[in-house]
Amino acid sequence: MALLVQKFGGSSVADPDRIREVANHVARCRNRGDQVVLVASAMGKETDELLRLAGDVSGDPLGREMDMLITAGERKAIALLSMALHELGVDSESFTGSQAGFVTNANHTNARIVDVRADRILASLNAGRVPVVAGAQGVSQEANVTFLGRGGSDTTAVALAKALDADACELYTDVSGVFTTDPRVVPEARRMHSISFDEMLEMAAAGCPKPAMRSVEYAHRHNVRLHVRSAFTWEPGTWVTEEDPVEAALIRSVVADDTEAKLTVQGVPDKPGIAASLFRHLADADVNVDLIVQNVSTDGVTDISFTVPHDQVSQALGICESHSDEFGAGGVRSDNRISKVSVIGAGMKSNPGVAALMFQTLADNGINIEMISTSAIRVSCVVDQDRADEAVAVLHAAYELESTDF
Amino acid sequence: MALLVQKFGGSSVADPDRIREVANHVARCRNRGDQVVLVASAMGKETDELLRLAGDVSGDPLGREMDMLITAGERKAIALLSMALHELGVDSESFTGSQAGFVTNANHTNARIVDVRADRILASLNAGRVPVVAGAQGVSQEANVTFLGRGGSDTTAVALAKALDADACELYTDVSGVFTTDPRVVPEARRMHSISFDEMLEMAAAGCPKPAMRSVEYAHRHNVRLHVRSAFTWEPGTWVTEEDPVEAALIRSVVADDTEAKLTVQGVPDKPGIAASLFRHLADADVNVDLIVQNVSTDGVTDISFTVPHDQVSQALGICESHSDEFGAGGVRSDNRISKVSVIGAGMKSNPGVAALMFQTLADNGINIEMISTSAIRVSCVVDQDRADEAVAVLHAAYELESTDF
Repeated sequence: MALLVQKFGGSSVADPDRIREVANHVARCRNRGDQVVLVASAMGKETDELLRLAGDVSGDPLGREMDMLITAGERKAIALLSMALHELGVDSESFTGSQAGFVTNANHTNARIVDVRADRILASLNAGRVPVVAGAQGVSQEANVTFLGRGGSDTTAVALAKALDADACELYTDVSGVFTTDPRVVPEARRMHSISFDEMLEMAAAGCPKPAMRSVEYAHRHNVRLHVRSAFTWEPGTWVTEEDPVEAALIRSVVADDTEAKLTVQGVPDKPGIAASLFRHLADADVNVDLIVQNVSTDGVTDISFTVPHDQVSQALGICESHSDEFGAGGVRSDNRISKVSVIGAGMKSNPGVAALMFQTLADNGINIEMISTSAIRVSCVVDQDRADEAVAVLHAAYELESTDF
Repeated sequence: MALLVQKFGGSSVADPDRIREVANHVARCRNRGDQVVLVASAMGKETDELLRLAGDVSGDPLGREMDMLITAGERKAIALLSMALHELGVDSESFTGSQAGFVTNANHTNARIVDVRADRILASLNAGRVPVVAGAQGVSQEANVTFLGRGGSDTTAVALAKALDADACELYTDVSGVFTTDPRVVPEARRMHSISFDEMLEMAAAGCPKPAMRSVEYAHRHNVRLHVRSAFTWEPGTWVTEEDPVEAALIRSVVADDTEAKLTVQGVPDKPGIAASLFRHLADADVNVDLIVQNVSTDGVTDISFTVPHDQVSQALGICESHSDEFGAGGVRSDNRISKVSVIGAGMKSNPGVAALMFQTLADNGINIEMISTSAIRVSCVVDQDRADEAVAVLHAAYELESTDF
């Protein structure tokens, strides 16, 4: 008998039919003898609809009130799931984040978990019930309702799995696992049986949308076994685990991210402190800088390029321009039409040819590299957004990912 | 400076435009120097939609889960109201029923208030804010979410007004006050300036839908001044108060109720204990019996007639039929096509001609009276549903309610 925390995303509980399917699945798990704790997101696009309503009444809604509003979504989902379970004769109880013992800081709309006091969930399990917990919710020490942010249900599930010492945390979503690349772009993409936390984290940072990076970090830190799988096919998906069961693969996946823009501050004097000052100003304004590349100096001046999310471009441009005198910079340019293409694999640590093969493959296909950034297990190249799908396909082929079995 | 508890019903907060209108009204009250506490129902028809969703996943949803589901509705309304207030520069905070200190019994879907611990609301007021409280919500002593039932927001408002010792409790609704009769039926109907609690309670019991009877009872018991008024015209409405400021009127209003059916148990032996046994069986099954009339005995047998809500007719019929041997009854008939027409007024206590005028007026217009029931300040006649509007109109005219000024 295993204790499983099962998290169901918005599309998995989008309507009464989907909710009944989830309830059927839980009933089958129970019949097999497993103990189950459910974590649910808001139904379908409900969170978006609530955000739209907030935008209708306020230009800049207060975080405390946003959290009160948004948490209505998961509340509906957990109540309906619990009703559907009762309908199948499965005894269950729904719990808000607060009732489930999620104590957070007071950073509304993006709160951090401070403590998980899972006594009520444990008592519910011990009474033979299926606790159904609202994802992404908590309560601050001032007794205000808090929201953990988009994707926060994954974090709720992982944190509960840790608090309950569960055997696994299953993240049910609308994809059937983690793939070597986006199967919509490369039909030969393969679903992996397993992947290491380090690789999963690099993939998330490189733009892979699911699971949420924060939940992977939490699972990694607390050694929670993650299983990313489908609530539509119910087939086994991808395990994310501490120890990779196979020998580290050279490259596991190719990930593209077109949510960022490139900014270049041109003609910056090549002297100490300029970059520090630039990125301090950006950080102070909460601009989320990703890649940073500084070119080699020519005649004592250099260019500094960096990427930021699309919705922060104008803010970042403003900061660069208002400080360009201070930097002695020649000008600032931005380019929204870029894509960051990354290859990721723990095996590249001991194989120096990985980056070279990436550069060569892109060059052979006439795809120009605008920026390069590397970590121990990742190489990222910024390319023209129009060439991104092609870059992903040729790299997927070059590393022979279609014929590997992870 | 007055402290006002203002309750806004579903149609008053149905969409972002309505919510902004309510926020504007509150801002004006504050500018006049009043302190305001808001209580809000769920937006528009949201509670009905949530009930429909529950019906989609379960034939017989558990009360605990219904309450978790339904309370999502007011949560959205209070968060959006608070945002709209902030947008106008009015500092405010939303509170769930639990956060507002509403402790209830565990009778889910129709919980009763046990205690109101309004410390947080008081602190919010003292900090110069407008607390916005979710109507009809509470928390049980077992820390489960509870719902006070439909119309429960009125009760929340009255209970808060009592707990805060407010100067008045304003119930904003989609009608502009309490009328001498339904103005859709009788165009000459007049809005009353004031009405006594006793009369308002009789009107509610006679079928007047707003305000909810329970909230009037609560206000009466705790001496909370009620003001029933419109959130669409914002004009002054009807005060419900302990002491009627004018001399008690003979008749104040005519109310029709077509939500009940008549059951008649025929040929019952006229001996002690039969009626007691019949109504004990009905009460044990939670059948909500309203009027009861027993005809004069003829040849030692009599008929017992009573009214029940439409949705309890088949249940009541079943009980009567299954016990008809025990009663020695001749048979049971039911009639859904009835309407209960009542005239109400505290002045009738000292004026014996009121009932006679009612019977005469109905007789003059050829409207047959099927049942009669009276209290100290009310006379009710059951008539054919097809004649109910006509009955209301002729009675309204007979008591000259169109030309009185209450």
